[in-house]
Amino acid sequence: MTSSIGLNALSSGLDVRLAARNGGLLGHTSGLAAEYVQANCVILPRAHAYDFLEYCLRNPVPCPVLAVSEPGDPRLPVCGADLDIRTDIPSYRIWRAGEMVEEVPDITVFWRLDLVTVLLGCSFSFEHALLAAGIKLRHVEQKKNVAMFRTNIQTEPFGPFGGNMVVTMRPMRPADAIRAVQITSRTPRVHGAPVHLAHAQSIGIKDLAAPDYGDPVDILPDEIPVFWGCGVTPQVALLQAKLDFCITHAPGCMLVTDMLNEDMVEQ
Amino acid sequence: MTSSIGLNALSSGLDVRLAARNGGLLGHTSGLAAEYVQANCVILPRAHAYDFLEYCLRNPVPCPVLAVSEPGDPRLPVCGADLDIRTDIPSYRIWRAGEMVEEVPDITVFWRLDLVTVLLGCSFSFEHALLAAGIKLRHVEQKKNVAMFRTNIQTEPFGPFGGNMVVTMRPMRPADAIRAVQITSRTPRVHGAPVHLAHAQSIGIKDLAAPDYGDPVDILPDEIPVFWGCGVTPQVALLQAKLDFCITHAPGCMLVTDMLNEDMVEQ
Repeated sequence: MTSSIGLNALSSGLDVRLAARNGGLLGHTSGLAAEYVQANCVILPRAHAYDFLEYCLRNPVPCPVLAVSEPGDPRLPVCGADLDIRTDIPSYRIWRAGEMVEEVPDITVFWRLDLVTVLLGCSFSFEHALLAAGIKLRHVEQKKNVAMFRTNIQTEPFGPFGGNMVVTMRPMRPADAIRAVQITSRTPRVHGAPVHLAHAQSIGIKDLAAPDYGDPVDILPDEIPVFWGCGVTPQVALLQAKLDFCITHAPGCMLVTDMLNEDMVEQ
Repeated sequence: MTSSIGLNALSSGLDVRLAARNGGLLGHTSGLAAEYVQANCVILPRAHAYDFLEYCLRNPVPCPVLAVSEPGDPRLPVCGADLDIRTDIPSYRIWRAGEMVEEVPDITVFWRLDLVTVLLGCSFSFEHALLAAGIKLRHVEQKKNVAMFRTNIQTEPFGPFGGNMVVTMRPMRPADAIRAVQITSRTPRVHGAPVHLAHAQSIGIKDLAAPDYGDPVDILPDEIPVFWGCGVTPQVALLQAKLDFCITHAPGCMLVTDMLNEDMVEQ
């Protein structure tokens, strides 16, 4: 952690956003303000926003849209009071022609009146529900990033956006996997139910010990891998589209909103 | 089929019951009156009924109680108009001291004023919901009985009743298995969600090709076995209790009720 302030003090979404805005928080947001929804952030020109949104809506499992801003407006009042998307994420990535050119703590100097912000749900929210149900998550226990894999599951393309689905993997005993299907079926705004389980090879994953993103975790003999749609999918689609210009959050450095994780669970 | 009448004509629960009552139907009820709930039937003396009911209520997944009669009353109006439990099942088994002594098409001569009828849900009802969702069931396609296995999962004992859970097994692709968890989570009155999937050995099943009851079915390379609690479980508990006297339906020869399978699915 690169923060200079007491991170335990960051108990709300607003706390985290203000710390990011003030330069006191530059690192990842995992574990901060645990009750609050963290979101993937994509900022792109209005000229491409329609195609991107349509792509997300056609692929709601890996790309669950939480909110979309007005063009040029850095606020997103539906997601957070006093939210300024130009300053409230700890670290941003600037992309030009599909290449990452810079990682910065503030995008005020890059802001344009045609930029649209799209926020996408994140599996941190359903992990909250799984943990609350007593299901243990190995990567959380071991303080690792979740393991992510590219699959052979094709997303439905739209405009320049397309590509294969990326999934997160969590090892579980079968009875917990069944319970996890039940719980995450009630969280469609944050990836919903698993897309696959058990046989990794049939979705094109050759080696479960070598994730494409994140950290490897052990799968014990009495466990199966359980796979959920992952918010890296829209990022891959975005990079493949090689837009002239776009901005994303840096990996793990999410926007923390005022929305509550418990409100992501349908009753 | 041993029936002397046109079985296709048996489109309602009442049709099937009257055919059984009149001696026109002596065989199994699979596929008959497909919209209607079929029930496992246990008839036992009032002196043991409390313990048996309590056992079922402590183990609702394998032993989902649909209805209980008044002692001595052969009717069950909540389950069917003009229902007479002494005649309306195609074939019954008479048990004494834990041994099957006779298989008969009518139990009128065995009826006693202290007998209580307990009806238990059956997986035919949730199979109806799975098929309606487009999930293929191999044993249905191959016109076989479902494969059933004894497990090492202990039920919660009560009084003389106890023993390990029996499960049904259906092979499915992982995506269908996830969908099947979602669908059967909404059918708690008929076994509900699976109890296990994938690793057969961890619930004590050594050979999936050799079921303890029913017929074997193939499991294809891209499929996993999915296991549900089975209504044979209370029958095993009943036999282990070695009651002086009880009556059950003969395997596959169920009581067909007036209740609709679609009403077993919670909305």
